[in-house]
Amino acid sequence: MTILDLIEKKKNKEELTKEEIQFFVDGVVSGEIKDYQTSAFLMAVVINSMTKEETFYLTEAMKYSGDVFDFSNIEGTTVDKHSTGGVGDSTTFVTMPILAALGFKVAKMSGRGLGFTGGTLDKLESFEGLNVYLSKDEFIKQVNELSIAICGQTGNICPADKILYALRDVTGTVDSIPLIASSIMSKKLAVSADILVLDVKTGDGALLKDISATKELAKLMVEMGKMAGKKVSAIITSMDEPLDNYIGNNLEVLGAMEVLSGADNELKTVAKALAVEILYQSGMSESKADEEIERVIHDGSALEIFKKMLIRQGAKSLEIKKPLIDGYEIKAEESGYVEKVHTRQLGKFVMSLGGGRMRKEDDIDHTVGLKVLKRVGDKVEKGDVVACLYANDNGALSRVDEVLSAFVIGRQKPQRTKLIVDKVR
Amino acid sequence: MTILDLIEKKKNKEELTKEEIQFFVDGVVSGEIKDYQTSAFLMAVVINSMTKEETFYLTEAMKYSGDVFDFSNIEGTTVDKHSTGGVGDSTTFVTMPILAALGFKVAKMSGRGLGFTGGTLDKLESFEGLNVYLSKDEFIKQVNELSIAICGQTGNICPADKILYALRDVTGTVDSIPLIASSIMSKKLAVSADILVLDVKTGDGALLKDISATKELAKLMVEMGKMAGKKVSAIITSMDEPLDNYIGNNLEVLGAMEVLSGADNELKTVAKALAVEILYQSGMSESKADEEIERVIHDGSALEIFKKMLIRQGAKSLEIKKPLIDGYEIKAEESGYVEKVHTRQLGKFVMSLGGGRMRKEDDIDHTVGLKVLKRVGDKVEKGDVVACLYANDNGALSRVDEVLSAFVIGRQKPQRTKLIVDKVR
Repeated sequence: MTILDLIEKKKNKEELTKEEIQFFVDGVVSGEIKDYQTSAFLMAVVINSMTKEETFYLTEAMKYSGDVFDFSNIEGTTVDKHSTGGVGDSTTFVTMPILAALGFKVAKMSGRGLGFTGGTLDKLESFEGLNVYLSKDEFIKQVNELSIAICGQTGNICPADKILYALRDVTGTVDSIPLIASSIMSKKLAVSADILVLDVKTGDGALLKDISATKELAKLMVEMGKMAGKKVSAIITSMDEPLDNYIGNNLEVLGAMEVLSGADNELKTVAKALAVEILYQSGMSESKADEEIERVIHDGSALEIFKKMLIRQGAKSLEIKKPLIDGYEIKAEESGYVEKVHTRQLGKFVMSLGGGRMRKEDDIDHTVGLKVLKRVGDKVEKGDVVACLYANDNGALSRVDEVLSAFVIGRQKPQRTKLIVDKVR
Repeated sequence: MTILDLIEKKKNKEELTKEEIQFFVDGVVSGEIKDYQTSAFLMAVVINSMTKEETFYLTEAMKYSGDVFDFSNIEGTTVDKHSTGGVGDSTTFVTMPILAALGFKVAKMSGRGLGFTGGTLDKLESFEGLNVYLSKDEFIKQVNELSIAICGQTGNICPADKILYALRDVTGTVDSIPLIASSIMSKKLAVSADILVLDVKTGDGALLKDISATKELAKLMVEMGKMAGKKVSAIITSMDEPLDNYIGNNLEVLGAMEVLSGADNELKTVAKALAVEILYQSGMSESKADEEIERVIHDGSALEIFKKMLIRQGAKSLEIKKPLIDGYEIKAEESGYVEKVHTRQLGKFVMSLGGGRMRKEDDIDHTVGLKVLKRVGDKVEKGDVVACLYANDNGALSRVDEVLSAFVIGRQKPQRTKLIVDKVR
């Protein structure tokens, strides 16, 4: 067997066997298969696709290319969530404390942000002193004692995926549903909780803008999870406007804590839907799940457990640091209705303030961001505050047009964005 | 414009512009486009193909990526031929001396063999002392004085093609009609004769086994030549058995000289058809062309001009060197009719004797080879000599089964192979 045989088969739309896909992944990791061969193979996969079985074999081979954590020494039911990445998306800090307060074990390994979508670890590091690098033992101990820990990946998880992902990025081979599904699921299954919920984003601020492709991805990922013997479901949620009113690291944690303190908004709607899926998979009815979630919000126990986690992981204070420009009001220059919000544009604007990374090695400014005050369907009068700017560079003030132009103001009142588009169980 | 834009377009089956293809070729030569990006692009081309226009832009861009020879300082009509490569294919040494004897100017730059197909330069070097590396001035002078010179490429011809060809070989992106056509035609058009004939091989011993793909390739190459303003036509010839009875470097030159001395066989049929195409493109009728060709064979002038060329290029003797095993008779073990000859298998066998190269840097043994005595349709009695073996290693004698098994003997007398399958003008 050589990589040329595999390329030949995939080029001719033939199905690869488990052994062939294992050979590919082994060769990628060992370096025996050269990157120019890998990229030719990946392009053949992008164009000719892969079957459900091939995708599963790829997922499993990548999963076992590195360390696998089974959490057998955590007592209770472990739960996990994954978002495909969006703007103003801090559901982790709402959903996971709720589940911890309800007695589940949240042993969550998260990543950093790249591009215009934020990363959980970066957001957590908004708190001075907070440490996201726990040893495996510290991590397990904290989950057993506190029911929740969120940390960076320890060990060598899915090295095959790391290599393939980096190559896909520079060879135009990102947009393949089977490749996206296997990349995400290999990592999720390598750190394997008992129940997993996926938040698959669709629309302007998402990786996939097209709803039918998004549904296909969600279905395939749920399928991969089930084939690996896990309880897993997915919700498809809109990224046609920022999910929360806050965009930016500090601000998004603040937004999540507001929901845990009782605020009712779009972030709460999606965060709750994610928690409901986990509870449903654990055997609870949806109405009972809703009730239980509201209970741990209103009695303050979810917020409490989140604060305990922050302090346990080293946060010196739960105060949020203020930037130099602390909420400069950006006002509408015309009246009408918000027809559309260019979500990606807002995400990129916050990234350009220092709130996100262009390259992996870039530093993050946790204090910068935007508070969005108008959503699709809202009435706007000239002079109304559309968004507030948080920045540390006075140059940002000359760029408010970039924020304003992301809000498309029209004459007709449009329909509000449907937040939860679909569900896959 | 970035290579990712081009990959994206080709992945989505869009047509690339002249400027985009120029950008690709420039980037490949400068190294700005990485080979893993090139191979992803090539795979998209292999699967989604290219239009006639895209193929022409690629051909032209590769042609101008290096030196271009126009032969304006050669008096008379320059002619050239190209074969896509076969087994026992020494038409160059028959067709070109005939054309030189008829007053055309043969300024031919040739290549070396790789794999199981022979190379013109290797075959010429069968003569001790013969030099295939002429300077441009020596080359032009010899063509003007003798009407014929066959040498290796001088200068830097089609560097873009060299890079792409090497990469295609190791990334499973060889079998694309537009890529094959542009690779061949860019080199042929960079060394631009007035009239060009192409011998496009089809069948077991050819690059393309499928006749419809071969026709497509022949048509596209003729089209590329015409778009570049050249007189060009193609014949499609069978490689379902070795063309000549000889396979091997020395032996093939011997076979060609036998035809120039009056032998009538399959090699003559194809070599003549190629010469007829050139004469037809120059304005002669086919029947007149046939007459003229026979004349320069029978009066010995074609053979004379070939011998003069060999001596002028340094051959110390026109004698052929003998190998240690000089014509060992391989005999049939059963009676019947030759139904099929595994041509590729015979080519590979001779290569394994040292007659061809596995890798570019391998040395060649010019004396080894096979003389094939039975062709498809021939009756064979047990004990008949099927082939004669020429080798320098006694180990070869234990491998005669490999030769015998290439001849499929059956009960029914099959149709003889149709040598000239089609013509494209």
